[in-house]
Amino acid sequence: MREVAVLGIGQTRFGELWDRSFREIGIEAGFQALLDAKLSSSDLGALYLGCMASGSLIDQEHIAPLILDYAGLAGHHLPGIRAEGGGASGALALHEGWLAVASGAHDFVVVGGAEKLTDVPDTEANRILSGTADHEWEAVFGATLPALWAMVARRHAHEHGTRREELASVAVQAHAMGAKNPLAHYRNRLTLEQVLQASPVAEPLGMLDCAPLSDGAAAIVLGPMERARRFTDTPIRLSASQVACDTMALHHRRDMTTLDSTVVAAKRAFAQAKRVPADVRVAEIHDAYTISALVALEDLGFVPKGASGPAFARGDFAGGGKLTVNPSGGLKAQGRPPGAVGVVQAVEVVRQLRGDAGDRQVAGAEVGLAQDVGGTGATSVVHLFERVN
Amino acid sequence: MREVAVLGIGQTRFGELWDRSFREIGIEAGFQALLDAKLSSSDLGALYLGCMASGSLIDQEHIAPLILDYAGLAGHHLPGIRAEGGGASGALALHEGWLAVASGAHDFVVVGGAEKLTDVPDTEANRILSGTADHEWEAVFGATLPALWAMVARRHAHEHGTRREELASVAVQAHAMGAKNPLAHYRNRLTLEQVLQASPVAEPLGMLDCAPLSDGAAAIVLGPMERARRFTDTPIRLSASQVACDTMALHHRRDMTTLDSTVVAAKRAFAQAKRVPADVRVAEIHDAYTISALVALEDLGFVPKGASGPAFARGDFAGGGKLTVNPSGGLKAQGRPPGAVGVVQAVEVVRQLRGDAGDRQVAGAEVGLAQDVGGTGATSVVHLFERVN
Repeated sequence: MREVAVLGIGQTRFGELWDRSFREIGIEAGFQALLDAKLSSSDLGALYLGCMASGSLIDQEHIAPLILDYAGLAGHHLPGIRAEGGGASGALALHEGWLAVASGAHDFVVVGGAEKLTDVPDTEANRILSGTADHEWEAVFGATLPALWAMVARRHAHEHGTRREELASVAVQAHAMGAKNPLAHYRNRLTLEQVLQASPVAEPLGMLDCAPLSDGAAAIVLGPMERARRFTDTPIRLSASQVACDTMALHHRRDMTTLDSTVVAAKRAFAQAKRVPADVRVAEIHDAYTISALVALEDLGFVPKGASGPAFARGDFAGGGKLTVNPSGGLKAQGRPPGAVGVVQAVEVVRQLRGDAGDRQVAGAEVGLAQDVGGTGATSVVHLFERVN
Repeated sequence: MREVAVLGIGQTRFGELWDRSFREIGIEAGFQALLDAKLSSSDLGALYLGCMASGSLIDQEHIAPLILDYAGLAGHHLPGIRAEGGGASGALALHEGWLAVASGAHDFVVVGGAEKLTDVPDTEANRILSGTADHEWEAVFGATLPALWAMVARRHAHEHGTRREELASVAVQAHAMGAKNPLAHYRNRLTLEQVLQASPVAEPLGMLDCAPLSDGAAAIVLGPMERARRFTDTPIRLSASQVACDTMALHHRRDMTTLDSTVVAAKRAFAQAKRVPADVRVAEIHDAYTISALVALEDLGFVPKGASGPAFARGDFAGGGKLTVNPSGGLKAQGRPPGAVGVVQAVEVVRQLRGDAGDRQVAGAEVGLAQDVGGTGATSVVHLFERVN
C-alpha cells in the first residue's frame, strides 16, 4: 500500500443554508479542495461522497454522479460512489478514498461530505436521524438519538460520578472554539449557567447539550505521498484509516458507557500509524451530544475510563495543554450536517497540522486524530494525520 | 493488485416478501454465501452492502452494521460500509469489495445487496425510484424512470427504426428465462400479444415492459485467487470491476440512445481483463425497462448501434447462440430489488460459469459479464468474470 497525502481541503459555511441547494454546497467544497490542491479536474480519478440521508431529506439518491455532473465533470465519466453509515458517512467516504489511493487504483481522488438537514421540519430531521439507530428495536418505540445518548450519560454518571456541570463544560468549550471559526454554525459563547438552565431534551441533556441540525459540505483531495511535494510545501500524511462496527441497539452493548467500535478502530489506527494516543496534539471528535465527547476521549485512550468529565471541566482540552479537542467548535458549535462531519473533521485537523488555523491554531501540532460516529456507535471511524517535515 | 476470486454466492427468493424484514433477507443471503464458500465468519474482514433507499423505504439508514449485528458478528467489530448509487448500488458494493481484496486491505469480504421495495405503496416506491434521476430537473416536473426510459425508446425507434415488437420480445424472453428460475419474482411465461396489449405506462412502454417492484437480497464472498483452491474446485475470477458516471439528467446526454457510462465502463473492463466482447458467453444486463436491455447490448459492444432490436426479436440471446442474455430472468422476471440487482447479477454469472445453473445452464460459458445501471445511466458498473481451469 502506498502512503497517502492530503493535498487539498475545502469547506462551506455551516448553518441553516436555506438559500443554497445540496448540489451547490457540494460543488463549492469540492472546488475549494481542488484549488487548494492546485489540481485540475482532469487529474482526478474518482469521487467518494459521504451523505447520511439525502433520499429522505431532499428526495435525491444517487448523489455522487449528481455532484460530478454539476461540477462540470460528467464528460470525464469518473467513478462516483456514495458511502453511507449514518453520522459516520463522511468518514467512511474518506476511508474509501484512502483505500483507492493507497492501493494504487487511483492517483488523485476527491472525498466529499454533504448534507442538507434543515430543508425539512426539525421533527422530521430528528425522525430521520433516529433511522441511524435500530429502527425496529429503538426508533419505533420512540427512542431518539438524544434519548439514547441521555441513557449513556445517566449510566456514565452512575458508574463514574460524572457531574451535570462536567457535561455542560463540553458545550461551553465548543462554543468558545466556534466563536473563533468564521464558518461555524454557532459563534456565540455560552456560560455554564446557560447550558445548565436550557430546556431539557432528554435528561440530563438539555437543548445546549445537543449539536444543532445543520447544512454544510466539506471536501478533501487525496493523492500519493510520493507526488505530494509537487503540490504543497506542507503535505499531510493520512497515516491511518480504520472502521469498526458494533451492535445497532444500545441495549445490546457489553457496556453502555463504552463505544467498543471506537476502542477497536482507535487501537487499529494507532497500530497502523505506529503511534500512541500521547502523540496526538489535536483531535476532532464526535460531540453530537456533550456525553459523546466524554465517552470518545476515554474510548480513544486519551484519558482513563471515568476521567474525562473532570478533565474537560478543568479545561485540559481547551488549548495550551497536551491535547486540544475540537478547535473547530465540533459538531456542537461548528455544526452538524451528518454526511459532512467526518470530512470536515479531517479538514480541520489538516488545517491545524499545516499551521493554517489562524486564531484557533494549536501550537506544535504534528499528529492529529479524527473520530466520527454513526448512530450511538454502531459505526466508528478513526483517522490519523501527520505533518511531514 | 491481487487477483480476486468469488468463493461463495447466496440469494433469497425475489418477490413481495411481506412476511420478511430487511435484516432477515440480508442475513439469509449472507449466510448462504458464507456456507457456499465454506468460510467461517471469523475469517471475514469486512462487509460492503449495496442498497438504494432503505431510509425512505423502511426508515432505516446505517444498514451495514445492522446486518453484521443481526448476523451475530457485532463482536468481531468488522468494518461495514453501505454503497449507494441508485439501482447500481449492489454493483458499487461489489466494486468496493473487489478493491478491498485486490489491494490486500482484507483477505475475505462479504458483498451484499438488499432492498425492501414493497413495504410502501407502489406510488411511493415509484416516487423514491425517481430520486435516482435528477430531482431538480426531472423528478420534480413529474418525470418518472419509466417516462424517461420511454423517451429513450422513442428516440431509439426514431433513429434506428426499432419496432414495438422488438421491445416486447425482451420481456417475452425474460419471462421464459424466469420460468426456469425457482427464486424469480415472476415465473409465468408471456406471449408477444400479452406484452403488446398490456396497459400503457409511458408509451411505447406498457406494464409488461417494466420490471416489477421487488424485495430480495443477494450476497457474494470474495477472496484472493491464490487461496481460492482451498475453498472450491471451480474458482471464478472477478477479472474486471469498473464504474463510470454520466450526467444525471437524460436531456444533458450527448446522445439519448447511448449510455456513455456503460460504453466507458465496458471499455475499461474489457481492457482490465484483456478480453473482448466476443469472449463473453453469458451476460446479466440491466433490463429494468425493455429498452434498457436493447441499449445495454449496444453500449457493451455486443451488437452495433441500432442492431439490438432485430437481434433480440430473432432470439439471438435466448440461449444456444454465441451470447445468452439474462438467464436468471433479469430485472424483468427474476425481479428488481434495486440494491440487490448488481449482486444477484454476479451471483447468476458465477452460477453459470461454475456450471451449476441447472435447467437454465448456458453451455460452455467461460467468460461472463454483469452490467448494472443507476437511474437512466448516471452510473454504470461493469464486471467481468472468468472460469479458471
